[in-house]
Amino acid sequence: MKKRILTGDRPTGQLHLGHYVGSLKNRVELQNKHEQFVMIADAQALTDNYDHPEKVRSNIMEVLLDYLAIGIDPSKSTIFIQSQVPQLFELTFYLLNMVTYNRLKHNPTVKAEMQQKGMEDTVTAGFMIYPVSQAADITLFSAELVPVGADQAPILEQTNEIVRRFNSVYHTDVLKEAQPLFSDCPRLVGPDGKAKMSKSLGNAITFSASFKEIEETVKKMYTDPEHLRVQDPGKIEGNVVFMYLDAFDPDKIRVQELKEHYQRGGLGDMTIKRHLMQVLEELIGPIRERRHQFKQQTSMVVDVLHEGTLNAKKEGARKLDEIKEAMKISYRLQNLTPFFSV
Amino acid sequence: MKKRILTGDRPTGQLHLGHYVGSLKNRVELQNKHEQFVMIADAQALTDNYDHPEKVRSNIMEVLLDYLAIGIDPSKSTIFIQSQVPQLFELTFYLLNMVTYNRLKHNPTVKAEMQQKGMEDTVTAGFMIYPVSQAADITLFSAELVPVGADQAPILEQTNEIVRRFNSVYHTDVLKEAQPLFSDCPRLVGPDGKAKMSKSLGNAITFSASFKEIEETVKKMYTDPEHLRVQDPGKIEGNVVFMYLDAFDPDKIRVQELKEHYQRGGLGDMTIKRHLMQVLEELIGPIRERRHQFKQQTSMVVDVLHEGTLNAKKEGARKLDEIKEAMKISYRLQNLTPFFSV
Repeated sequence: MKKRILTGDRPTGQLHLGHYVGSLKNRVELQNKHEQFVMIADAQALTDNYDHPEKVRSNIMEVLLDYLAIGIDPSKSTIFIQSQVPQLFELTFYLLNMVTYNRLKHNPTVKAEMQQKGMEDTVTAGFMIYPVSQAADITLFSAELVPVGADQAPILEQTNEIVRRFNSVYHTDVLKEAQPLFSDCPRLVGPDGKAKMSKSLGNAITFSASFKEIEETVKKMYTDPEHLRVQDPGKIEGNVVFMYLDAFDPDKIRVQELKEHYQRGGLGDMTIKRHLMQVLEELIGPIRERRHQFKQQTSMVVDVLHEGTLNAKKEGARKLDEIKEAMKISYRLQNLTPFFSV
Repeated sequence: MKKRILTGDRPTGQLHLGHYVGSLKNRVELQNKHEQFVMIADAQALTDNYDHPEKVRSNIMEVLLDYLAIGIDPSKSTIFIQSQVPQLFELTFYLLNMVTYNRLKHNPTVKAEMQQKGMEDTVTAGFMIYPVSQAADITLFSAELVPVGADQAPILEQTNEIVRRFNSVYHTDVLKEAQPLFSDCPRLVGPDGKAKMSKSLGNAITFSASFKEIEETVKKMYTDPEHLRVQDPGKIEGNVVFMYLDAFDPDKIRVQELKEHYQRGGLGDMTIKRHLMQVLEELIGPIRERRHQFKQQTSMVVDVLHEGTLNAKKEGARKLDEIKEAMKISYRLQNLTPFFSV
């Protein structure tokens, strides 16, 4: 049976191969099996980029181009801008009453992010409450499945806690618990073998990367530092080139053969790097080309976003009405009289 | 010069004489000098009444009837329902990025209320952030003056801090600081001379109180416990009847004479209480009558609320556009193209 999925990205940069492995590839498949809402989370992005609104704004279109180029199909998936669905703000406000401040403080995902960003003392209220805003995203669209990385599982637990609390306080079942859909791919390591691939670390291969850019990134990739001569045996563990081949080369048998050859000795780093460059070009080349074409068709692309967002707004308005009915605060401006028994 | 005022009440019960002294009486005067927005703060009321939505809902109309009966004139004041202005939720979301969680925790008004309500450990996120929601109320309507009790001054300080932060982050002056308008009347003491007059303490004289109810409340009023015989001298200090006469008897000279007579001896408690009953009936009688009449005209009363709320929504939409323009996130669904330079 078709299920409703909510997924999306913060528009803080172009998407890249790290996103492809972790989520984008799945979405292209999921849209055929399920009903998928893909949210460009600009309002959420502002919680830690409030002082760089132009960054968030300009990347909405970049992310949209990435989606379309990768194969997210607007006839199957509803792509929309978060901030244009006003019901999300209102629902967030009501859900904030369903969670104690103490609980929010102890959300492991939020705690880790706060540490990472060094903002333990200066954390804004907006950032602290973003898990509640996510609960609003998930529940307003009645998502049953939410694709998450393992480190984001607490976010979904928080959402489901809020759902249970809400349903118990208002004696209803209007909000639905969501199940996580864990990605089977581990996080893509950066080309240097250390951090993850990330736009902010400057090590990302985007979907508009030229072959030359791919070459440059792969050339510098971390391999086996002790593999000095071609004829020497090389190590696979921690060797980024082979990690990328595992992630991106569709020919698993060939990858296995290359690994064995490398371990025996006689396979040079430059040879496997050339191979990886080809593999990545075969993946990115057509995406790059489609992205370029979509970029020429601004008005069509904007129409896609417009229509998706209208759909999301409609769904949001319908669901918020239902939620406010359950909360017994469903007085509506157009028709106040019957709601007040004076 | 006319200034914009924002004021209002949480609809958690009928209004009463305590509100009259502290704010309602002023509003009837202020609407002639200024441009007054009167907000029925249902969304804010839900932050600490989320589990009693029907209480909030039913009291919207009670408060509206109180307003009209007292003389708040819809042709001069804009009366509206907070939750029906969706821009307030959105602005709250953005303003949450302008304040640290640490700062919110140390808001004296919030701290005192948390203590009073015994919810230090169980305080909800919704309650914690209500000062930010108030900042959104005040700034969305560009209020220049906000009538407050002395204990609410920190709320306005918090708002103005947020305004300065916002204007500095976004290099704008789109948000305006507001000035407090302190009431010159002290808080009305309860009939027992101890707590304040409050619906929840069951000691309130509402605007629908019958003369019999006024009589009963005044009869039990705390006077001078040592004033046992009529001919004895009595004390004015802490004598609730005289406090109420100070607050409600328009004839200040007569009050002065009564005080002196009471202090000399020869003026019985029942006599001054009878006098106070008359004074209160002269105030409440006409209000009670008007309230009763409005209550018969549901559709007219609902129209007032409808029209006021439409005005507030229009003003809210206009101002939020201006604010988002300043935040550089003013892409609008109706016309996305020019906002994206792909």
